[in-house]
Amino acid sequence: MAVNAKISLIGAGSGEFSLGIVRDLCMTDSMWGTTVSFMDIDEERLDAIHNVASRYTAELGADIQFEKTLDRRESLDGADFVINTAMVGGWRGWDDARAILAKYGYQRRIRLGSFHQFKLFMDIIHDMEELCPDAWYIQSANPVFDGTTLITRESDIKAVGLCHGHHGVRQIARLLGLDPDKVQAQSYGVNHFIWLKKFYYEGRDVYPLLDAWIENEAEAFWAGPDCGISDGMGRKAVDVYKRVGLFPIGDTVTPGGGAKFDVYHRDLETAQRWQEDPHGWMERHIKHVFTAVEKFKEVAADQSTKVTEAYPPKRTLESNVSIIDAIANDKPTVFQVNIRNDGAVPGIADDVAVEVPGLVSAAGIQGIRMEPLPRPILVHTLEEIMRMERNVQTFQSRDRGMLLEMLLLHPETRSPEDAKACLEEILDLPFNADMAEWYQ
Amino acid sequence: MAVNAKISLIGAGSGEFSLGIVRDLCMTDSMWGTTVSFMDIDEERLDAIHNVASRYTAELGADIQFEKTLDRRESLDGADFVINTAMVGGWRGWDDARAILAKYGYQRRIRLGSFHQFKLFMDIIHDMEELCPDAWYIQSANPVFDGTTLITRESDIKAVGLCHGHHGVRQIARLLGLDPDKVQAQSYGVNHFIWLKKFYYEGRDVYPLLDAWIENEAEAFWAGPDCGISDGMGRKAVDVYKRVGLFPIGDTVTPGGGAKFDVYHRDLETAQRWQEDPHGWMERHIKHVFTAVEKFKEVAADQSTKVTEAYPPKRTLESNVSIIDAIANDKPTVFQVNIRNDGAVPGIADDVAVEVPGLVSAAGIQGIRMEPLPRPILVHTLEEIMRMERNVQTFQSRDRGMLLEMLLLHPETRSPEDAKACLEEILDLPFNADMAEWYQ
Repeated sequence: MAVNAKISLIGAGSGEFSLGIVRDLCMTDSMWGTTVSFMDIDEERLDAIHNVASRYTAELGADIQFEKTLDRRESLDGADFVINTAMVGGWRGWDDARAILAKYGYQRRIRLGSFHQFKLFMDIIHDMEELCPDAWYIQSANPVFDGTTLITRESDIKAVGLCHGHHGVRQIARLLGLDPDKVQAQSYGVNHFIWLKKFYYEGRDVYPLLDAWIENEAEAFWAGPDCGISDGMGRKAVDVYKRVGLFPIGDTVTPGGGAKFDVYHRDLETAQRWQEDPHGWMERHIKHVFTAVEKFKEVAADQSTKVTEAYPPKRTLESNVSIIDAIANDKPTVFQVNIRNDGAVPGIADDVAVEVPGLVSAAGIQGIRMEPLPRPILVHTLEEIMRMERNVQTFQSRDRGMLLEMLLLHPETRSPEDAKACLEEILDLPFNADMAEWYQ
Repeated sequence: MAVNAKISLIGAGSGEFSLGIVRDLCMTDSMWGTTVSFMDIDEERLDAIHNVASRYTAELGADIQFEKTLDRRESLDGADFVINTAMVGGWRGWDDARAILAKYGYQRRIRLGSFHQFKLFMDIIHDMEELCPDAWYIQSANPVFDGTTLITRESDIKAVGLCHGHHGVRQIARLLGLDPDKVQAQSYGVNHFIWLKKFYYEGRDVYPLLDAWIENEAEAFWAGPDCGISDGMGRKAVDVYKRVGLFPIGDTVTPGGGAKFDVYHRDLETAQRWQEDPHGWMERHIKHVFTAVEKFKEVAADQSTKVTEAYPPKRTLESNVSIIDAIANDKPTVFQVNIRNDGAVPGIADDVAVEVPGLVSAAGIQGIRMEPLPRPILVHTLEEIMRMERNVQTFQSRDRGMLLEMLLLHPETRSPEDAKACLEEILDLPFNADMAEWYQ
């Protein structure tokens, strides 16, 4: 069986991610016949992914077609699935803001909400309403929680947010000596704040095993070479688990999710005791990304490289293609998804995007109804929701006053006068011209 | 017309407040025949209010009866209305905690939630379920927002929270040269975070007048002798109004509500520029309370004083008696009330107590449905709700771990180890014996 689906990949220049899609399509017979439309605003990167992807399918003899375009609307036109992985301007523009922020006494980098990302999300969605109103929108760009909530509030376009953070449970399985592929797990909450609820292996609850590992083996792991800084199974993660009753998964405790539960690294001495180093973790993470980008560039430039050797043909852990397959070919399967809550997690409003297991099929995505989050976790989750609401509603308001509120609430803001002056200087930066226009 | 209602007044020893109830009863013919049962755990204060109240009604020839008791259940037995104004232990017990907190580096006083108040509220409510299940419970003790939410979640006892903060609009009226008694105003939100929505005088919107006053006269007021520190019409209040679009009323911006919007007084210089002094404001407030207590003691001790001269017989601004009158004698009237939301304020969960105008009658209390709060205010309100949820749900959980979360989240907490040690020391204080038992 083959489909003739068109997948529009926005921000395709993030080579390794895009090639992952291609790999997964190649490994999924039922998706052969698909056309992937790569779209990016960076022509060089766009050419690179088109080049590598074409060589990849040729080497494997897979029936996948590719298009490339700098024109988003061309890519969206007639698409069945739209995967958005774009990061507008990366961190570059905000580097210019650092001198201004420092002048006003801010010690850390501040982003005033997610304007540039939100603007792109909504531009894509509005284009989709016109050019491919029945297509699925897959939100693979951050912030997934805020973005999925915004989009499902603003449009009827079918949308789902994806994040691979839930695979954090695989590390737990490995440490317990279990085959990660055989673990049956359910984590839930909101994106970057998810908690391991169900944890089964061959029909048996693994939580007791995890508790025994913590009791008997954790200290040795923490002292050994396999435990990284700010590790997902480190001292902090285990202590948070003890505090709230469910194990935190992925970026719930790691710096990738914003260094929550920061009492473990308020000062250097405490951070060292808990083996935490959020700044070092982020640097390492960024280095990984750069290394991957460099490798991809080299492979693209050297036509003599066998790309299936550089990137062996095995399935990634990303679920984009599997989810598309489940919808396009009606293969009802449960995946980790971010969707409008609508009662899946009791105690959270219907119009907030939750991360839950969901049944995906040609009928769409149906959330699996979970138990209420344990009370300590629910209360923390409400704080995440509040932060998201501030971000989303500030964008929706188009009100410069609401943007100012973000700065006024910042604990490092010295006075209302400072906040007002600082905001205007930041909005005057060339990078923020469209932001200044949005917030009247 | 006269009723034979029994009003149980818990915490009656706060003399001036209780005498206010008596005064209002005396001035309300339709409430004659009422019996007030004063209850307090402080016998001296209890005797004082019983003495003064009896003399008061005798001087006026009013038909109001009084009882006094140290036994709460005796007071509640057969009551039609229960007014709770009790403040457990005041701040005394927590003074003992200050040395401990200082040792762990906390610069300011911290209260770990509202355990002692919540425990009392729920003890009263559970007694009421047994002794007077059809009575109304009037929550006049702080925290009104948290307490009313807790009680309406935990019990079917009819409950309403009252606070006089909404009378802040009277100061605005006076400054604009209007008769406060003729102002038609609606403020709403959650207690200690309410916003002036409707502001009419003789059929005309007064907001334009207020805007003109801000434009032309505010500076002179701020520079003059009538503007107090942290004034409800001060620079901060006006700036917050400019920020969010509705005028903040009462403790929404004043230190009585917890010094919210603290960017106006983060450092001394900024505070002076904005004429803010939360600490001084609180000291002055506490001095007022002590002065009132002293005066009441003197009046009680000196039988030769004419009490109606010391406390002239005019109605207070408190609405307790008027609300009881509206219910007992079915006089449908709109009052400022704190009730379970149930849709009165869109965008806030049903089971959160909101402060809104409500129609009070023999049929109960029906919230007046308000427009959604303006977006900037809603987002701030969500933060208030989150703080309330943490407080209420920690109490409901009876989980010492959740109590620890409060301390772990405090920005001054230096490490998880510190938080754990500090919590245990605080719970070991004799004052907190019942709290230590509650949180297992």
